[in-house]
Amino acid sequence: MSARSQGGPLRGIRVLDATGVIVGPTATLMLAEQGADVIKVEPPEGDMMRRLGGRAPANAPGMAPKFLHFNRNKRSIVLDLKTPAGQAVMRRLAATSDVFISNMRARALVSLGLDAASMAALNRRMIHCTISGFASGGPYDGAPAYDTIIQGLSGVADCFRRQAGEPRFAPFVLTDHIVGIIAAQAICAALVGRGTDGPGQAIEVPMFENAAAFVLSEHLGQRTYGPGGSFGDPRIMTPDARPLPTRDGYICVSANTDAQARGFFDAIGRPELKADPRFGSVAARLENVADYFRLRAEAMMARTTEEWLPLLRQHDVPAMRAHTLDSLLDDPQLRGSGTLVEEEDMQIGEEPMLGLRHANRYSGSGTAPPRLAPRLDEHAEEILSELGFSAEERAGLRNAGVMS
Amino acid sequence: MSARSQGGPLRGIRVLDATGVIVGPTATLMLAEQGADVIKVEPPEGDMMRRLGGRAPANAPGMAPKFLHFNRNKRSIVLDLKTPAGQAVMRRLAATSDVFISNMRARALVSLGLDAASMAALNRRMIHCTISGFASGGPYDGAPAYDTIIQGLSGVADCFRRQAGEPRFAPFVLTDHIVGIIAAQAICAALVGRGTDGPGQAIEVPMFENAAAFVLSEHLGQRTYGPGGSFGDPRIMTPDARPLPTRDGYICVSANTDAQARGFFDAIGRPELKADPRFGSVAARLENVADYFRLRAEAMMARTTEEWLPLLRQHDVPAMRAHTLDSLLDDPQLRGSGTLVEEEDMQIGEEPMLGLRHANRYSGSGTAPPRLAPRLDEHAEEILSELGFSAEERAGLRNAGVMS
Repeated sequence: MSARSQGGPLRGIRVLDATGVIVGPTATLMLAEQGADVIKVEPPEGDMMRRLGGRAPANAPGMAPKFLHFNRNKRSIVLDLKTPAGQAVMRRLAATSDVFISNMRARALVSLGLDAASMAALNRRMIHCTISGFASGGPYDGAPAYDTIIQGLSGVADCFRRQAGEPRFAPFVLTDHIVGIIAAQAICAALVGRGTDGPGQAIEVPMFENAAAFVLSEHLGQRTYGPGGSFGDPRIMTPDARPLPTRDGYICVSANTDAQARGFFDAIGRPELKADPRFGSVAARLENVADYFRLRAEAMMARTTEEWLPLLRQHDVPAMRAHTLDSLLDDPQLRGSGTLVEEEDMQIGEEPMLGLRHANRYSGSGTAPPRLAPRLDEHAEEILSELGFSAEERAGLRNAGVMS
Repeated sequence: MSARSQGGPLRGIRVLDATGVIVGPTATLMLAEQGADVIKVEPPEGDMMRRLGGRAPANAPGMAPKFLHFNRNKRSIVLDLKTPAGQAVMRRLAATSDVFISNMRARALVSLGLDAASMAALNRRMIHCTISGFASGGPYDGAPAYDTIIQGLSGVADCFRRQAGEPRFAPFVLTDHIVGIIAAQAICAALVGRGTDGPGQAIEVPMFENAAAFVLSEHLGQRTYGPGGSFGDPRIMTPDARPLPTRDGYICVSANTDAQARGFFDAIGRPELKADPRFGSVAARLENVADYFRLRAEAMMARTTEEWLPLLRQHDVPAMRAHTLDSLLDDPQLRGSGTLVEEEDMQIGEEPMLGLRHANRYSGSGTAPPRLAPRLDEHAEEILSELGFSAEERAGLRNAGVMS
């Protein structure tokens, strides 16, 4: 077996996942691809992303593309947590799990018996992770949190205003996606911390505070040292920092060191600029950043991207094309590394399907063997059997409406 | 001692950190705040971010703001890895560390004896993490990778084009920052995987592949199912998805469910729109997304943000102000949660200094007690003493130019 399929570093860890949409599924996707057994507990109607994540193929209802890409390698069971029987199955799952993750509010967790104290009573080893909108105890505690609301409140939108004139959202569910990764990291840190026989603990991962820290760590800038200082990094906040149009597309050039700047002037056939005091040092180019960026932009229009790339490389100036999403799909590095693949064994539509894979490599453990995101309730029978429910009991649960 | 200062879940883990600038320091910042002993090995001139991360106060050279915010809770030692004596100290550090992290290229690691095989020979438990630009073995292997180049190549910039007409970079070192978090997560997963007596392993965290997977997981969309499908989520890609101007600022409103849409129409005094078939369901609003967003934008101009917030809350419509970076600094939730603090014991400039803290909470382990980012070489003496170097040997290393 190759390292890539030896199971992953989290093999043997079970994650009970009561999250939906993006932030929680991002966290559990990472854990699942690293080999954790992620049991996705869905309400009878399924994770909302099954319907809102785009159009599913006719032969695979609920398998919307965004659902697929955030839920690979997980198992699905439907449990109606509004019923006592559903809660009882949940508790039995909790007793055998290492991690419980949800983005329910505190009150809802308590009413379902899924709060940290109840879980710890069932299983002292449990890492109980709550992804919240806002850290508990603060004035916004319990307020609804959606990605765009967090982008606005945390200063993400204002950074766009500073860069380009008006507040905008990033073209991603940026804070959901980032905070999901942060949650996966915190969970693994807590798994390290409990060791082989220590108790688990409760973790709270607040979206707003994490997003604001993300923004401010980059852009607190001179404001760090007092009210007189200015925010932000001028090389990032200028509207001139952008992919540069060439004759046929866009290119990204990074010429920040003195050697790169000199190489750039040679590459564009303007060697005299190497003696220009405006561009002679990092400090000088920062001072004249608008001039420097404008000069770069004007120069790039003279050739095609394919012409520029070897020329810039020859002068040791880092540069790469700016892909469109279309051209990205054909990128030889992305395909060659196996991060973007044509699914062969996991076809669900009528045409060849594109799938993504965990991008990191682990020399010893590899990652989990790839599995398609689950159909709703796909693994109910096997999960309940593993928990020791008899065929009769399983049928009873189904009849009781606990499961779909 | 409160949970917040009981040391963190990674207490007892030592991280040997040979990274600089943003991506690596982002990873080790998370580990440091979770209690790991992060030893930051700097070249004699220091981490480049000490100079490029903004202006340092006159009394604290090298303490540029961006350096400060990405290097809290770490210890610093200067080692000249070009010298055999510097390499020897490095090997002694490696023998006592759980994690080694760098973003050097493979060839440089081998030449310094810091490659995974050499490290494993010194310390079989070592988690050896390399953050690379591009997964090794592919056509871009070893090409220089900077954040903007990765943003362009991975499709981040093209998502801006799809949203707003031209390719742009995010106003963040977005891929550095995200991939740093991903690296911290992978390291902790590997620490879980080695258990109490298993061997470590080598991890590769490639920036491009991770960034492309980030983009495509959100925006592969219907293209997942074949060449005929379109990319992206139209609710995110539309230029109309943005913070909405009010009479005095900007507000973010999330009215996606039917109940929220109806509440919104009531809040703006247009209850008749509740019967408008264009807006009667999630599918209808998606179909008429431009109309829906325009209507929302027009309505918000009628009042101030402070007037809208309680009115929208009253109708159960999620909404929050879009902060400017200035107003964010006064946010009562951010301050109240202790994520943004006035530093009291760690003043280095002349005015009150602002600091950031790890945003997550850990009920059992807490986080590491806060410490300012280190001055260059601040901890050399104590680190070498811990390694068993005598006072004489330490002086010898200093004279040999190994340390600053």
